[in-house]
Amino acid sequence: MSDVRDACAAAKAAAPALAQATAAERDAALEAMAAALDASHSRVLEANAADLASAREEGVSTALQDRLTLTPERLDGIAAALRELVDLPDPVGVVERGFTRPNGLEIRQVRVPLGVVAMVYEGRPNVTVDAAGLAVKSGNACVLRGSRTAIHSNTALAEILREALAGQGLPADVVRLIGDTSRESVAELGRARGLVDLLIPRGGAGLINAVVEQSSVPVIETGVGNCHVYVDRAADPDRARAIVLNAKTHRPSVCNAAETLLVHADVAAELLPGLAAELVAAGVELRGDERARAHASMDLAVGEDWDAEYLDLVLAVGVVDGLDGAIAHIAAHGTGHTEAIVTEDRGAARRFTAEVDAAAVMVNASTRFTDGGEFGFGAEIGISTQKLHARGPMGLAELTTTKYVVEGDGQVRH
Amino acid sequence: MSDVRDACAAAKAAAPALAQATAAERDAALEAMAAALDASHSRVLEANAADLASAREEGVSTALQDRLTLTPERLDGIAAALRELVDLPDPVGVVERGFTRPNGLEIRQVRVPLGVVAMVYEGRPNVTVDAAGLAVKSGNACVLRGSRTAIHSNTALAEILREALAGQGLPADVVRLIGDTSRESVAELGRARGLVDLLIPRGGAGLINAVVEQSSVPVIETGVGNCHVYVDRAADPDRARAIVLNAKTHRPSVCNAAETLLVHADVAAELLPGLAAELVAAGVELRGDERARAHASMDLAVGEDWDAEYLDLVLAVGVVDGLDGAIAHIAAHGTGHTEAIVTEDRGAARRFTAEVDAAAVMVNASTRFTDGGEFGFGAEIGISTQKLHARGPMGLAELTTTKYVVEGDGQVRH
Repeated sequence: MSDVRDACAAAKAAAPALAQATAAERDAALEAMAAALDASHSRVLEANAADLASAREEGVSTALQDRLTLTPERLDGIAAALRELVDLPDPVGVVERGFTRPNGLEIRQVRVPLGVVAMVYEGRPNVTVDAAGLAVKSGNACVLRGSRTAIHSNTALAEILREALAGQGLPADVVRLIGDTSRESVAELGRARGLVDLLIPRGGAGLINAVVEQSSVPVIETGVGNCHVYVDRAADPDRARAIVLNAKTHRPSVCNAAETLLVHADVAAELLPGLAAELVAAGVELRGDERARAHASMDLAVGEDWDAEYLDLVLAVGVVDGLDGAIAHIAAHGTGHTEAIVTEDRGAARRFTAEVDAAAVMVNASTRFTDGGEFGFGAEIGISTQKLHARGPMGLAELTTTKYVVEGDGQVRH
Repeated sequence: MSDVRDACAAAKAAAPALAQATAAERDAALEAMAAALDASHSRVLEANAADLASAREEGVSTALQDRLTLTPERLDGIAAALRELVDLPDPVGVVERGFTRPNGLEIRQVRVPLGVVAMVYEGRPNVTVDAAGLAVKSGNACVLRGSRTAIHSNTALAEILREALAGQGLPADVVRLIGDTSRESVAELGRARGLVDLLIPRGGAGLINAVVEQSSVPVIETGVGNCHVYVDRAADPDRARAIVLNAKTHRPSVCNAAETLLVHADVAAELLPGLAAELVAAGVELRGDERARAHASMDLAVGEDWDAEYLDLVLAVGVVDGLDGAIAHIAAHGTGHTEAIVTEDRGAARRFTAEVDAAAVMVNASTRFTDGGEFGFGAEIGISTQKLHARGPMGLAELTTTKYVVEGDGQVRH
């Protein structure tokens, strides 16, 4: 059996023990995992140093090296995140609905763990611990496939977590790291029907598309965001400026940052010169269509600019013929993540929120608010840009499924 | 563009008009579809006669011919089912939850149509109308791929529904039938990412597996049920007999019929002789393990009997060493559909419902109750045997997704 099948089969065998554990036992396991990390700094940092040495040797970018780097402070943060999970409400066992049928059957729909959740991710070794923590909190075993560059760090972290779980009387195989970091191991994970209940790719569009195309196990697509801000004719100009600047510059490297600004033709002359100057002053490179360039100096946007998720201080700027033009542009180029309108016109807001097809539609608010933390969900699993099972920020409940429990006293069908 | 891509693209283009229609408009469309069927009996029956003639020529079984046959009475039933949908609550626009964040953002999670729902099905032409009705009620466009044997009937039915939709001012392409009934057309449907939001195969295990393996669009697996009834040591013998007989013989051809009986070793001698006689008297062929055969005359079950979904008057019978044996047997052979325990022992019931991993777990009730109608959901879309998005009987809500609507007054992130 290959490394991947082996890991999945072991996780599946371990899953029932965790699924049957009480919330108190799972929380105690999380606390033990955090304590084990606290006690293992030197072991983790040594492994991390080996990854960093390889990365430097291979000429990996300093940005990527930074993402790979663990420090005592970062390890404290990772352990603290595990402890925060302890305080969140248990998603397992919640009765979503219940009713009694005319024949006396009592039916309850109860939240239960999925079983085995697999995650494929890039870069940061902290995801290994985050993902394991989310899995344990939600009663799932997990199979983790991190990147090659972080393999020593990930291996050390997984081993520490596994020892902590075993110390709590739970099977260590509740957390399995896949040692094989070849591309083929991702494809194999996607084919592990019957062993993996959910596969979540966390990374760029290339990784996500590859996983979706290759997988026969259920996948949740996360995170690709070509988010638009549409400034309507009836926008409050101060709100428009504040929202556009925030959506683009607050944290440009994340999926809920804005990538395209659309401006109603009637207010472009009034709004664009000042707004463009503010954006440029904030370090943003603008790429506009001809109508936008009539009001402010910027490079000409080419076709692909309208579909780009820059994840950088770059913004495409288009002038549209009102709400219909904005809705049509977003339908053609949006990725279904987050779309925002700035307007004081009730009718425009109502049409925009009804007709734009996205996980989140915002009125007079920055796209940056599409976030598990900002929604008050506590844990951050990712932002689903697909429509099945979970859409938008995912909380712990999205790592569970439901089961109907039906209780009778001898009912048969007539 | 191929027939399949063409149909999917047309449905996607038509979908927003239906999604934005009010519930009253969608209900009026359903009523118009029913009235159009009422007025078109001769047109449908003529097409159906052509299918039946081909089927007889090809030597299709009389059972299949019966499933293919339409009559004025059956057409009345199909129209009545459309009218029943009118009376069901609208699943669209329901606010699943809503909250206001400390910064004043008002967030609502609102139910919205998925967009385009595709269905692949076998045999019965009534599914064409059922599927179209469910789609229209839930605000979705649909792409339908029926079987080759029913192509004339399906084409006539789809045309009648399309004319009715157009008469209501809705795009006819809200309902698209795929004329290409080759195997390749199913595979192509599964690859239509970006055009199809959900694909539901309705048919046998072969069709379902092929669809899951081939598809990159989201699929919901339905209906394969290797359902078990476990008769515990603490079972009430009368309840056990009634439930086993009902689960096996009430309607053996459907997915929630029982396929395997498991009996606690301590009560096998008392229970099996009488129960086996009753089952045989009801026309059931029994295939037992050696321990079952010690108590009643039956053929020896071979390995594949424990995994078979007979859909017929055949029952595998095993004697197990108590609850642990039953749970282990079900974990090894169950398909995650419906599993039942007959017991008066609270502890046994509690462990069975907690530890058995299935869409529905029953205590002292027939497996036949796993059904949208029996659960009170009104419409019958199918029974999901997977864990994502929908598990168990699917109601209209399972043909929708949600969208977060976020309203602010200029909020930005700090």
